[in-house]
Amino acid sequence: MSLRLGIVGYGKIARDEHVPAIAVTEGLELAAIATPEGAEAAVPVYPHLAALLEGSPDVDAIVLCQPPAARFEAARMALAAGKHVFLEKPPGIAVSEVKMLGAMAQAQGLTLFAGWHSRWSSAVAELKAWCAAHPVDAVRIVWKEDVRRWHPEQAWIWEPGGYGVLDPGINALSILTEVMPEPFRVRSARFEIPDGRATPIAATMQLEALSGAPVAVEFDWRQTGPQIWQIDFSAGSQQRRFAQGGEDAASLTGNEESALAVEYRAMYRHFRALVLAGASDVDCRPLEIIADAFLCGQVETVAPFED
Amino acid sequence: MSLRLGIVGYGKIARDEHVPAIAVTEGLELAAIATPEGAEAAVPVYPHLAALLEGSPDVDAIVLCQPPAARFEAARMALAAGKHVFLEKPPGIAVSEVKMLGAMAQAQGLTLFAGWHSRWSSAVAELKAWCAAHPVDAVRIVWKEDVRRWHPEQAWIWEPGGYGVLDPGINALSILTEVMPEPFRVRSARFEIPDGRATPIAATMQLEALSGAPVAVEFDWRQTGPQIWQIDFSAGSQQRRFAQGGEDAASLTGNEESALAVEYRAMYRHFRALVLAGASDVDCRPLEIIADAFLCGQVETVAPFED
Repeated sequence: MSLRLGIVGYGKIARDEHVPAIAVTEGLELAAIATPEGAEAAVPVYPHLAALLEGSPDVDAIVLCQPPAARFEAARMALAAGKHVFLEKPPGIAVSEVKMLGAMAQAQGLTLFAGWHSRWSSAVAELKAWCAAHPVDAVRIVWKEDVRRWHPEQAWIWEPGGYGVLDPGINALSILTEVMPEPFRVRSARFEIPDGRATPIAATMQLEALSGAPVAVEFDWRQTGPQIWQIDFSAGSQQRRFAQGGEDAASLTGNEESALAVEYRAMYRHFRALVLAGASDVDCRPLEIIADAFLCGQVETVAPFED
Repeated sequence: MSLRLGIVGYGKIARDEHVPAIAVTEGLELAAIATPEGAEAAVPVYPHLAALLEGSPDVDAIVLCQPPAARFEAARMALAAGKHVFLEKPPGIAVSEVKMLGAMAQAQGLTLFAGWHSRWSSAVAELKAWCAAHPVDAVRIVWKEDVRRWHPEQAWIWEPGGYGVLDPGINALSILTEVMPEPFRVRSARFEIPDGRATPIAATMQLEALSGAPVAVEFDWRQTGPQIWQIDFSAGSQQRRFAQGGEDAASLTGNEESALAVEYRAMYRHFRALVLAGASDVDCRPLEIIADAFLCGQVETVAPFED
């Protein structure tokens, strides 16, 4: 018996990754879509989640792919209707709302999965094994991309709860917290917010692992040349570089779709396994780091950004 | 056998509250002070914690009363030296550093106490009983005081990690989370930060309890008339008002010292009991609410503030 899924929010990530991953995952079936814009699809399309729950009452689980600010209310509605829930990243606009959803899911015996797709590559699994074998004494994260290229016309990223450059940056933090399971603390942070916008276009953070290893973090959305998504780990004289999408981040473009596809397929297999096991997977650590950075960080207003 | 205490940071709160509370609490004894400014005292005075640990190695516990940005390093040093630790509020500049200290204390079998003094009045205990008996359906927090009157020449409150108006405001959140033990989520927040400063002079937040009860929060440091520290609870047709320092917050000034003294004495009795029991008490919920508010909130730059 397949798990019947309803997708809410039918933007780029839903169409490019969720739908193909569901199609190739055994035991999963796309049963309905909710999107205010409408869509051409082989399954019923509803204007919003309430209509989906009414019109397709036999869906077993809801996948939330809309911008994070809308996710809590939708997840609460889905859980109240007895549906399992899969949250795209970042899972919400506040740590507290994600934890509250976790408590609601547990109280109802439903699965909640807060997905961090960047964790699900084979490179991350290898990196985790390397970190377990080598006591890491320093980490440097550099995540620099061109917002105009990767996030065209996404107005929500600049609104409160939209994360700005922390939306891609949280992928790096999801990898860090996966491969180094120890706690991290935020020592300091600095955010550059364009005049008239609510979220940062650039950020730096200084973290420290429980072991004492420093973690220097640099996020920037104004990178127009080579795109850089890399994490460098040092352990004594040994070095290990993680580059998103392959060894050479600069040549990433051709590989990215397939790397992402691998991650999403792995997430959907995990989601199905969680539902079958009656379990949840709600890891708020990447979000907690960012919340702490805002708590103790310094904000600087920089030049306005025009799409 | 008395517990021998060393105080680090000998500002107003240490002199006005900690020293008198220690003096009247059975089983506690002030043994040393560390402060870069020096002090007239009946116990040894050191320039910093390292000197205190060296010069008075028989202290059992360290009380950290300096500004929160300095607290983590000092607490780590004290724990590493085998001392129990009492943190003034707010316990740090980030949730992650306080949790990390909690993990360190636990690993060493030492007591860590993150004190929230506002929780320790008899009014709060009565309020907690009332909330347990009445299903609260709405809360309104108004915390409006004159920063020039209560925080003169405290430059650190305007620096990153200094909290600004959230430093007094977190007292209200410590009461809220004490009297209503359910989870809260942050729905939205708005901060007013004076031009050229790092922390807010005013803030509003919309919270929601797991039960669905809305919590409207208003903090302002520009209140020059009557000072207001009150929390209104509604439960159906019933109302209950908490006013810091007594029923009439406007006439608070005369009572505040003794109300605070009661709270600090209760905290020190609790700290001693924790040490005797080999337990810790590290509640990060008030801090988590504020970190979340910064994560999803909107920042507005307002007119410069001059002391």
